[in-house]
Amino acid sequence: MKLLEQRIISDGKVLPGDVLKVNSFLNHQIDVKFVSQLGHEFHRLFADCGVNKILTIESSGVGIACLTAQFFDVPVVFAKKAKTSNISSDVYSASAHSYTHGNEYEAVVSKDFLLPSDKVLIIDDFLANGAALEALVSICEQAGAEIAGCGIVIEKQYQGGGDKLRARGIRVESLAKIRSMSDDGKIEFCE
Amino acid sequence: MKLLEQRIISDGKVLPGDVLKVNSFLNHQIDVKFVSQLGHEFHRLFADCGVNKILTIESSGVGIACLTAQFFDVPVVFAKKAKTSNISSDVYSASAHSYTHGNEYEAVVSKDFLLPSDKVLIIDDFLANGAALEALVSICEQAGAEIAGCGIVIEKQYQGGGDKLRARGIRVESLAKIRSMSDDGKIEFCE
Repeated sequence: MKLLEQRIISDGKVLPGDVLKVNSFLNHQIDVKFVSQLGHEFHRLFADCGVNKILTIESSGVGIACLTAQFFDVPVVFAKKAKTSNISSDVYSASAHSYTHGNEYEAVVSKDFLLPSDKVLIIDDFLANGAALEALVSICEQAGAEIAGCGIVIEKQYQGGGDKLRARGIRVESLAKIRSMSDDGKIEFCE
Repeated sequence: MKLLEQRIISDGKVLPGDVLKVNSFLNHQIDVKFVSQLGHEFHRLFADCGVNKILTIESSGVGIACLTAQFFDVPVVFAKKAKTSNISSDVYSASAHSYTHGNEYEAVVSKDFLLPSDKVLIIDDFLANGAALEALVSICEQAGAEIAGCGIVIEKQYQGGGDKLRARGIRVESLAKIRSMSDDGKIEFCE
């Protein structure tokens, strides 16, 4: 999506340690009108898939998921991040490692809100190694829900998480796919 | 707001320990169309206040803030919750106590995203003792930003946090104000 690539170039910041900061429009300050355009694009991609629920994970995914859900006219469920200790029996959960925060956490969704009859679009802001996304996929599988696909705003293609999921037959659509990022700030997108 | 009171009565659950669970439509699963109606109501209340930014705190506030911001055509900034240890100098921060999780945290906003020229509407899902809201107010004050007011979905009026802020001259509008809640599930709203 050209509009997004241009925004990443103009407002994103590449920091040492393979960090792309897009917190001026995506995940700290949210340019709501712009993110709504991303939601519109997710809808274009998944409009005919019978999606009846959008699943994401706190916190950065929530705004994007809500603005996207309006086009589908479906509810959002967001997984909570919990400490790996006491998980109750009335939730689905899957553990993941956060490379940003350097810790393990448990992604948790109440069993009330994911059903075998659900056809789920999974939405998230970033896809790198795929830890968070794999946890959400696992939660859908535990619930017996069908996965229509994953809609990602920015995929770091070179980290391989997206292709690992695609190899499992899961449809992953990323609005911007980064092929490489250098410490001097140069970003190269996939064709 | 009658619509919200009715939804709380029909779908909310009162649990022991003064807990009101509204996670089927507000803060785990999000009924996006319904929450958008709440956003419309916040816009009706604050339409003529010159609001140019909406401030909230992760995670439950983010969806509500984004759906509200569409009516104002303004960006959302959400405060992040950080451990009270290492806070950098490029953020505004204020500590708060979470009664839900029984811990202290630091609400943190990058200095880039709150300016003295801002007129801020603060949005959150719940207001009880007011700890989170007071942290957001403090962050606005640190930035020299003007506070247009606070828009709250559900206020537990009997916990006093809202009235404490009103006594300081801050406009607090709550779409549902609970006067009392009994362990047998009876909820009484303020007139």
